[in-house]
Amino acid sequence: MSFSIPTYTPPDFSRPELAGAPPAATEPAPAGGVVPHNFHGTSNHPEYLHLGGGRWVLAPESRMDAVLVLKGDTIEVKEARRVKQGEAVVVGRTENGEEGIYVHVDGFAAAEAAGADKFAFRTRGTRETPFSRSYDELYQVLRHDREHGYIAWVLGPAVAFDKDSRAAMQGLIESGYCHALLAGNALATHDLEAARFRTGLGQDIYSQNLKPLGHYNHLDILNEVRRCGSIRQAIVELGLSDGIICACEKRRVPYVLAGSIRDDGPLPEVVADVYRAQDAMRVHARRATTVIALATQLHSIAFGNMVPSYRIMPDGSVRPVYFYIVDMTEFSVDKLANRGSMQAVGILTNVQDFAVNLWNNLRA
Amino acid sequence: MSFSIPTYTPPDFSRPELAGAPPAATEPAPAGGVVPHNFHGTSNHPEYLHLGGGRWVLAPESRMDAVLVLKGDTIEVKEARRVKQGEAVVVGRTENGEEGIYVHVDGFAAAEAAGADKFAFRTRGTRETPFSRSYDELYQVLRHDREHGYIAWVLGPAVAFDKDSRAAMQGLIESGYCHALLAGNALATHDLEAARFRTGLGQDIYSQNLKPLGHYNHLDILNEVRRCGSIRQAIVELGLSDGIICACEKRRVPYVLAGSIRDDGPLPEVVADVYRAQDAMRVHARRATTVIALATQLHSIAFGNMVPSYRIMPDGSVRPVYFYIVDMTEFSVDKLANRGSMQAVGILTNVQDFAVNLWNNLRA
Amino acid sequence: MSFSIPTYTPPDFSRPELAGAPPAATEPAPAGGVVPHNFHGTSNHPEYLHLGGGRWVLAPESRMDAVLVLKGDTIEVKEARRVKQGEAVVVGRTENGEEGIYVHVDGFAAAEAAGADKFAFRTRGTRETPFSRSYDELYQVLRHDREHGYIAWVLGPAVAFDKDSRAAMQGLIESGYCHALLAGNALATHDLEAARFRTGLGQDIYSQNLKPLGHYNHLDILNEVRRCGSIRQAIVELGLSDGIICACEKRRVPYVLAGSIRDDGPLPEVVADVYRAQDAMRVHARRATTVIALATQLHSIAFGNMVPSYRIMPDGSVRPVYFYIVDMTEFSVDKLANRGSMQAVGILTNVQDFAVNLWNNLRA
Amino acid sequence: MSFSIPTYTPPDFSRPELAGAPPAATEPAPAGGVVPHNFHGTSNHPEYLHLGGGRWVLAPESRMDAVLVLKGDTIEVKEARRVKQGEAVVVGRTENGEEGIYVHVDGFAAAEAAGADKFAFRTRGTRETPFSRSYDELYQVLRHDREHGYIAWVLGPAVAFDKDSRAAMQGLIESGYCHALLAGNALATHDLEAARFRTGLGQDIYSQNLKPLGHYNHLDILNEVRRCGSIRQAIVELGLSDGIICACEKRRVPYVLAGSIRDDGPLPEVVADVYRAQDAMRVHARRATTVIALATQLHSIAFGNMVPSYRIMPDGSVRPVYFYIVDMTEFSVDKLANRGSMQAVGILTNVQDFAVNLWNNLRA
Repeated sequence: MSFSIPTYTPPDFSRPELAGAPPAATEPAPAGGVVPHNFHGTSNHPEYLHLGGGRWVLAPESRMDAVLVLKGDTIEVKEARRVKQGEAVVVGRTENGEEGIYVHVDGFAAAEAAGADKFAFRTRGTRETPFSRSYDELYQVLRHDREHGYIAWVLGPAVAFDKDSRAAMQGLIESGYCHALLAGNALATHDLEAARFRTGLGQDIYSQNLKPLGHYNHLDILNEVRRCGSIRQAIVELGLSDGIICACEKRRVPYVLAGSIRDDGPLPEVVADVYRAQDAMRVHARRATTVIALATQLHSIAFGNMVPSYRIMPDGSVRPVYFYIVDMTEFSVDKLANRGSMQAVGILTNVQDFAVNLWNNLRA
Repeated sequence: MSFSIPTYTPPDFSRPELAGAPPAATEPAPAGGVVPHNFHGTSNHPEYLHLGGGRWVLAPESRMDAVLVLKGDTIEVKEARRVKQGEAVVVGRTENGEEGIYVHVDGFAAAEAAGADKFAFRTRGTRETPFSRSYDELYQVLRHDREHGYIAWVLGPAVAFDKDSRAAMQGLIESGYCHALLAGNALATHDLEAARFRTGLGQDIYSQNLKPLGHYNHLDILNEVRRCGSIRQAIVELGLSDGIICACEKRRVPYVLAGSIRDDGPLPEVVADVYRAQDAMRVHARRATTVIALATQLHSIAFGNMVPSYRIMPDGSVRPVYFYIVDMTEFSVDKLANRGSMQAVGILTNVQDFAVNLWNNLRA
Repeated sequence: MSFSIPTYTPPDFSRPELAGAPPAATEPAPAGGVVPHNFHGTSNHPEYLHLGGGRWVLAPESRMDAVLVLKGDTIEVKEARRVKQGEAVVVGRTENGEEGIYVHVDGFAAAEAAGADKFAFRTRGTRETPFSRSYDELYQVLRHDREHGYIAWVLGPAVAFDKDSRAAMQGLIESGYCHALLAGNALATHDLEAARFRTGLGQDIYSQNLKPLGHYNHLDILNEVRRCGSIRQAIVELGLSDGIICACEKRRVPYVLAGSIRDDGPLPEVVADVYRAQDAMRVHARRATTVIALATQLHSIAFGNMVPSYRIMPDGSVRPVYFYIVDMTEFSVDKLANRGSMQAVGILTNVQDFAVNLWNNLRA
Repeated sequence: MSFSIPTYTPPDFSRPELAGAPPAATEPAPAGGVVPHNFHGTSNHPEYLHLGGGRWVLAPESRMDAVLVLKGDTIEVKEARRVKQGEAVVVGRTENGEEGIYVHVDGFAAAEAAGADKFAFRTRGTRETPFSRSYDELYQVLRHDREHGYIAWVLGPAVAFDKDSRAAMQGLIESGYCHALLAGNALATHDLEAARFRTGLGQDIYSQNLKPLGHYNHLDILNEVRRCGSIRQAIVELGLSDGIICACEKRRVPYVLAGSIRDDGPLPEVVADVYRAQDAMRVHARRATTVIALATQLHSIAFGNMVPSYRIMPDGSVRPVYFYIVDMTEFSVDKLANRGSMQAVGILTNVQDFAVNLWNNLRA
């Protein structure tokens, strides 16, 4: 069961309808953060622009719901809010080449075609879908991408609320299976709370006991870190040594903590401006080859929207970006799909078990 | 079935343990946004401070997880991040008066005591709990508070995705049943998308049909409003006239749109900095007498954390603040309870039906 | 918005591949309740058999996972367990006519074809799908089928746990909107418990209060009905007058109470043998033109499996059978679809609201 | 962390209110399957009857919602439907001894008392509750009870739909961690389907692929087993060798397959009469020391209702019966609690992971 990254097949631009396509058109942005009326919005699929003379160029690092800005022969994929007045924004809403824009949805076409029976059971993924192979493939993808890719984790706080799953995440990070962490104030706060008090929101992360005055624990750790001025300084002053954030600091794994209106505190590192937070997250979205999103609708969908379905590697080859979403409800997984991330693989389970499974398998 | 606001019974401060209590102690904040080690954290229950000489003062407009700052005899309930260096922060973590702090949990004690059987079925609220009375009470509360209170709605985007529920919300707002609206970019965007295109994320809000190129609709409305510079201006220029946001504008109902990392756009009115957004939301939390939170975990919990369980009315009387959370899952309702909002009444249903029910009943 | 039943378009049997099809083959059943190796299993779609000489006959009252028995020119759709030794069972597993079997999946082809965009949001139905039109259509279907069809309800106990939804169901039955009721021991028991004690499993169906010793209530009503010997006799002796079961008795609406291993009691009318219960349910499945299944996975899927997607009316015309499933979770709706009932319309909400909505609209 | 079964502390019958209690009263059953008006209904807690002269006897093998029949000094716990005319049924609905009936709810009182803070977060169990210790305890319980107890598994079909979880269950059974299996037709059918075709309802249990004509697979295995006349014979004739049912047959682990109205087939061993199925299940409920219920509301609640919270061991000692329920939704776990099984430990996760975790840990 040797693993290899699927091969990418580019479009055949000699096909008549593409060979005869006009060049993509642009119009200048009428104002900063405002795009032309007929702007082309990107999907997360590979999109090619015809730049004239039969030259089709693949947009690098695409994402959902951005626009394409042309600077000479360079295509920039940009959120509309970041477009400057006068920039040349690609216009046109067809996807088949007739306006010089081609969206290529089957570059990694699955070898196994869907059956053609008029009738079949179990056409929708649910908690009863078998996940054995999803796990096995994920183990292989992670082993591969630890060396040859960029693995981004998106974590909700639940993963820090349980002793074993928190330790599993720590192990995965320390072993090189995490190149970037995307999360919010809560994940970091409760992970540090556990490092300091062994609790999550006051509940013992092993015994489930509610500790006396435990509802102060997360407020206390927030206050202490704020007093220290930074997480890094707090780790030193408070002598913290285990968990997710400590592992990131130890391994110098970058993390983005995006602010939300639910935050207490916040920790000093939290980015208060959500659009600046998006920009910081997008840095990792551009590099990601595998994304694993655990138990957070907010961050999963936010990051999911900015991750391409493919990545152009330094050697020019194109590979798929794997996106796994792990949650307890069909609703969360469907919601991601309904927002455009059709290629996301859903695993319906408790993230506690998921993290422990991964670590049990990969630690060997 | 005449309705009256429950009466508040203050603590009996002549009880020996309270009569002999010391005054509440304070310590100066060691730095801006940092509080003393032993700070007292507030709940959303009424909390009294002994200011000496037997004078107990009720903290006004309390909330979860804030601190108490004393300025002479005035108690200010403040988020720790807003505390200034040197301010006198109340310290002490007991709740029974022994440190001059008394948390009063049964001021509105229910007349009907819980049964005393060793055994009972159905002790936990679920979707199978009967909600007939919850609805009937809510109708009465809303009729009362339309004139005599302050009704705040917290809305997730789902309420704008359906024709009938969107129209119901519009009717409720236009009829005076909404004094403030708390939401995010998505609610406003999709409501305006519906006003312009009759779709929500490209899906017809009546027929469920996916419109051709409908996935552009929310991007187009965002772009148009950004071009206009404000929602109000866009309503005029685009000739929009129905839905939730138009009703708020027409009735001059204030709304706070808090930013999140999931946002496209955003609309010009969205508050990008989440802590400034919290401050803007808190203005309404201080005034609210009834809160109805629909189909949004993020905003419901955020707002839930900042709403007191009581309000001191202008005439000095104390009344309860009603908090209804409407969602499809026990998890969402339990989560709010697990974050401290024990008094929240959960109604487990689809917000589409909930909004339509309310409007059918109240429009008469 | 006048309503009419969609027209059925039969297959074009003059198409070469059908015109040249062989007659359907049969083999004798090797034993009672055992079918030939290559038996043909039915779907709930219209299925035609070629009986030779170009004569194609539509199987009447088909269902999921049954077999076709030929008796002369008559097709009988039978569960395998009911086949007698030697009966002529149709064999062949193709659906396109090549073995004389044709499955006709698009006889009621929707006028609105799906869009052809490479990309679209919201392709999966969830709780955020707009249901306004589903309701409006359902109102029309029910008004039509009250006179011209056969409306079968499948009810879980939750509908009896709430005062308003129980009263709504009573109203619907009394007004002729229910021709048959399929349920279990629990629905009938708790409905009678409410008629006698105003509780459901001991909880007041209006106030939510747990009544002292209320956990005896359902045991007491079971014991009383068992003493009386029948529900009908108990209604007289105990003077019961409201609710779902009383309405059925009053209107002489037939009901099937199928036994399950969760039952207390049971009530005398409950069918203890589940396969005899299936046979009793199937009587109504054959006649149903509209099915509404509320809050019961067990009964919804059981009945869903035995309902055709079409019905041949007495005048020979063919019409669709409407199937609505109302539940709180995507999982339940998807599960029904995953068991083959693709045409089922899901409405994700609390059945309390659903029943009340229906009655509010139809009572007028 | 050595494990020992908690000690049972019987009531102190020398307490005045118990020392002065009258003997329990009985009345004759008025008819077969009908009990006296004021019958005493059992809980799953230890219940003692005063038989006179200060002699209190503990009811053996109690269960929810049964009655107590006295035969001399012997107490029989019986479902009301099984009571014969004239049998002496205990009457009285108090639990504190005043009618000679004492319900003992704290015989295994937890060492860790609940905290006494007026305020605490996370008082309700959800998917975010940490389960590390629940797993660790369960491993210990299972190792203990493999030799010294009676482990009953209640399985929904989902556990057979995935290759790894099915193999894990097989390993657990073959290693002696299962003394009885309670399930339905679907679990056995799909497990045998997997043994024969490697699919579950036509979907490959490893790759998730829908096999061509795979929707025939479960019908074919049903037909084949019915032809063979028994599961045991079919295993021989078809050469089946792996999975849950084969492991039970190999180890001579008894299993009860209870019928339901959702069944296709059914398999020959399925008990068609649900009350006879209850009786067959109750045999194992009386012996169980640990119950693990996976992914089936129907069977979990059915079996949960008939399992005592304690067992009197052959040496006269009393020990607790452990009850674990594993499901994806708070609703299922709460529903079991709402039906009276308060002591059930919920683990909210996918049963696929749960089974694999157990086997990974216990196989060593």
